[in-house]
Amino acid sequence: MAIDRLSLTFGALADPTRRAILARLAKGGASVTELAEPFDMTLPAISKHLKVLERAGLVSRGRDAQRRPRRLEAKRLGEATKWLERYRRLWEGNYQRLDALLEALKTKEKKWGP
Amino acid sequence: MAIDRLSLTFGALADPTRRAILARLAKGGASVTELAEPFDMTLPAISKHLKVLERAGLVSRGRDAQRRPRRLEAKRLGEATKWLERYRRLWEGNYQRLDALLEALKTKEKKWGP
Repeated sequence: MAIDRLSLTFGALADPTRRAILARLAKGGASVTELAEPFDMTLPAISKHLKVLERAGLVSRGRDAQRRPRRLEAKRLGEATKWLERYRRLWEGNYQRLDALLEALKTKEKKWGP
Repeated sequence: MAIDRLSLTFGALADPTRRAILARLAKGGASVTELAEPFDMTLPAISKHLKVLERAGLVSRGRDAQRRPRRLEAKRLGEATKWLERYRRLWEGNYQRLDALLEALKTKEKKWGP
């Protein structure tokens, strides 16, 4: 069964190393060796993560034949953000209810003492 | 190895049925039977998806002992959105470049004809 694009994106984001790789690439392109440095991982392990990110369209390869620098393709992140934003009203509402509760507790504390 | 919370959230979102369940629950609580109806899936199949969503903290169970309605817990969606929004500048920049390109092509077309 073909996996839909949004599922591929969210699946690729479901790993802390892959999210860290994206965070690094957001600052600029980097070769596999450069990407491996801060992670204390072997090159094959990093390459495996990069393959998942490439398959999801989140990372692409630059043209430089020597370095083969990887680049962030941010468009898919935008699509995922847009999907989640449909629920913004709901989670912001939750936070607001929590804020109201904390405010009410503070007022009560002032009134009745600790 | 313990899976971190954000990875659990993104992993739970990496499936179209689970995203559809969340979309349904955003409109209000629903029992497993009610959730299964539009999906043409067996109850055990839906229950399996619900377990993934519950484990990720995206869905909780109501107190009604008979219906055990499921509810959306939107807070974790907010956390995932916040992670993605750090890259907003990047993907909006990409869209803007695309817009500029399309605009340039249109202008060129007008100038030179089809």
